Amino acid sequence: MSKNFRIALAGLGTVGGGVLHVLARNRELIEARAGCAIEVVAVSARDRAKAEALPLGNAEWVEGTASLATRADVDCVVELIGGAEGVAHELARTALQQGKHLVTANKALIARHGKALAEQAVDHRAQLAFEAAVAGGIPVLHALRTGLAGNDMLRVAGILNGTCNYILTAMQKEGREFDDVLAEAQAKGYAEADPSFDIDGIDAAHKLAILAALAYGMSPQMDTVHVEGIRHITQSDIRYACELGYRIRLLGIATQHKDGIAQRVVPCLVPADSPLGLTEGVFNAVQIEGDAVGRVLLQGRGAGAGPTASSVISDIIAIARGERWPAFTVANAALQQRAILPMNAHHCCFYLRLTVADEPGVLADVTRIFADEAISVRSIIQHTHDASTPAQVVVVTHETHEAAMQRALAKLDGLTRITQKPMMLRMETV
Amino acid sequence: MSKNFRIALAGLGTVGGGVLHVLARNRELIEARAGCAIEVVAVSARDRAKAEALPLGNAEWVEGTASLATRADVDCVVELIGGAEGVAHELARTALQQGKHLVTANKALIARHGKALAEQAVDHRAQLAFEAAVAGGIPVLHALRTGLAGNDMLRVAGILNGTCNYILTAMQKEGREFDDVLAEAQAKGYAEADPSFDIDGIDAAHKLAILAALAYGMSPQMDTVHVEGIRHITQSDIRYACELGYRIRLLGIATQHKDGIAQRVVPCLVPADSPLGLTEGVFNAVQIEGDAVGRVLLQGRGAGAGPTASSVISDIIAIARGERWPAFTVANAALQQRAILPMNAHHCCFYLRLTVADEPGVLADVTRIFADEAISVRSIIQHTHDASTPAQVVVVTHETHEAAMQRALAKLDGLTRITQKPMMLRMETV
Repeated sequence: MSKNFRIALAGLGTVGGGVLHVLARNRELIEARAGCAIEVVAVSARDRAKAEALPLGNAEWVEGTASLATRADVDCVVELIGGAEGVAHELARTALQQGKHLVTANKALIARHGKALAEQAVDHRAQLAFEAAVAGGIPVLHALRTGLAGNDMLRVAGILNGTCNYILTAMQKEGREFDDVLAEAQAKGYAEADPSFDIDGIDAAHKLAILAALAYGMSPQMDTVHVEGIRHITQSDIRYACELGYRIRLLGIATQHKDGIAQRVVPCLVPADSPLGLTEGVFNAVQIEGDAVGRVLLQGRGAGAGPTASSVISDIIAIARGERWPAFTVANAALQQRAILPMNAHHCCFYLRLTVADEPGVLADVTRIFADEAISVRSIIQHTHDASTPAQVVVVTHETHEAAMQRALAKLDGLTRITQKPMMLRMETV
Repeated sequence: MSKNFRIALAGLGTVGGGVLHVLARNRELIEARAGCAIEVVAVSARDRAKAEALPLGNAEWVEGTASLATRADVDCVVELIGGAEGVAHELARTALQQGKHLVTANKALIARHGKALAEQAVDHRAQLAFEAAVAGGIPVLHALRTGLAGNDMLRVAGILNGTCNYILTAMQKEGREFDDVLAEAQAKGYAEADPSFDIDGIDAAHKLAILAALAYGMSPQMDTVHVEGIRHITQSDIRYACELGYRIRLLGIATQHKDGIAQRVVPCLVPADSPLGLTEGVFNAVQIEGDAVGRVLLQGRGAGAGPTASSVISDIIAIARGERWPAFTVANAALQQRAILPMNAHHCCFYLRLTVADEPGVLADVTRIFADEAISVRSIIQHTHDASTPAQVVVVTHETHEAAMQRALAKLDGLTRITQKPMMLRMETV
């Protein structure tokens, strides 16, 4: 490494631009903390026009990203292109094979190829770093890797997708339906034109797989994350949740059990006055529960130019300062194959909203099915309603096995007097 | 360094015992994260009886701490004795001079002698680490040093003393007076027999001086922290604060201004629904505001065996893994002399509770004084009261200079119809 720490930056979108702006604005203090000058020697992006308004300094514009990974004058490649495959993956792999450090904000890449990249990094004495891939500006990977590293991690639970949290919060505060709020979020730029990556939970699942990998010393296992999104959440559910003293949040949760690790991304009810219930709008929050430290909450902005740039630059500074760490908290050779528990092994309290014909005997049928599955009811809400609309019954259960609840749901499906597919949401104590 | 990372531990109180328990319980995962075995080779404490119930393994009991620092078979001394001077200071200095790494939970030591110790560490190629000195289990120093290191830190504000927060929360929830709650906290072991260190703000000031040093690249300047404690907070103030939509919290706050750094520990009003207003009981919380990341909140347990051990062990793991970092975020030679702003330069909104004789003209006198100092009133509360007790008037001002408020307070002191010393509290937007 030369006296200067020399960077090549691929991708000049929101995050890439943010990194260049913050590096330029805070140059003096960043270099004092890194202990050396940070020099951007080359940049590349799909669209050269994007480079024009950016503080590029002496950085060379390069067509195509391939050459960034092979330049002799580069110590570290910063990949801000995105996507698990294609250009980003190729750049990451080549950079590490050339012994360049790799800093990336690419959650899909790390969730899919993290272990292989970590192995290439070690083989070529390079550092793989991806703080910006999870929860934007919140330094949660640093916390798992170092600040809380003495703990057996009992649970990691977080609001990991700001778009979903914005939608759920707006539905609650403004009394509007999902489609309406989504359209507004798209107009404001908080949600993509194709929103499925966010609202179907895929983005949160990538992040959860990475969190679980660091917390439990395993490689990211994206395909075993149980994922449900928030498309089906209605204004009724939001209102009933509030009435019960809860909020609906899309949470990514990884927990440790005797027989393995559970990992899921699900919309669920959390107490209104809990830290995650109190986390609103585009904010992210991660609660880590360690056996020694208890519960620690980290909360902040999960996306955007500044917060993501903050995390990208924190990785650059740590590497420039000479810090080296195992990408997934333990050495690659020590990464364990942890058994991943199926969703059926989960147990929790459940929220069930049933739309029923207003006839005698419906509740008797429903409660009979619960009794047969040994599901104990904690509370029931049924409000008087207009005779022209179907009745809604909300049932909250005591702690129950997911498998029993799924069997009950199948039986409820057979009742003709239940006129819509039941809405089932899990309740979490966070 | 040998293949094992060898520790000598001084002090077997709550924290020392916690460190031994967690090291024993989580040995396997700690060693996987450290990349080597962690071996406690020697321990020492004032009272040998304390060692008896602890999982000492093969550690040798040593009389007196002095020899711990000079043993050839020790890589790292863990100082958990406490106190800025005396045995702890001597041990720390000697250990570093011998080229041993030093991990400590001692906030007074670092606030008083941090810079000199950091210089000795560099001179002897040792690492000085003190995550456990601030906010117990919350990895806030790691966050300032690495996770948020790309940011210009606009503000660091935190609840840094769990004893004070427990007392203030109990006063609010249970409607009891300060002395009563303090006595109960002492009985429960949440407060020391001599509580002044906590309730007069000294402990929080030590921690704030360390936070400010890391945030602003300066050595800790304990003597320039403006410190006020919570002894004078009454049940009346707690109730009026709630009525105004606020909570009273003892905050440590460091902020950056054009002409220098402001650092203060003061009881103040914070919005009830703000992250710090929502932090209750023995919990600590630190809010860091960076120019790129915006506001990040870290919340968790600020004291106790487990949380403090968590932070001590995180430092041990980082050093064992080979990480080295500048103790105060930038190299010692780059530590700046930052101008520290006097409290008189502060400006904020103020809460003022006046006890007045119930006579015509009192309010006219008071508001005349405010007008003369160009202090603008935002709201006034005066409730009807029993004729046998003096009237209470609470005034909330718009943003005002501290100097103007102090001049107004001096003038109010001259009014004979103000029958008690006015209670002044600052209001913070956190």
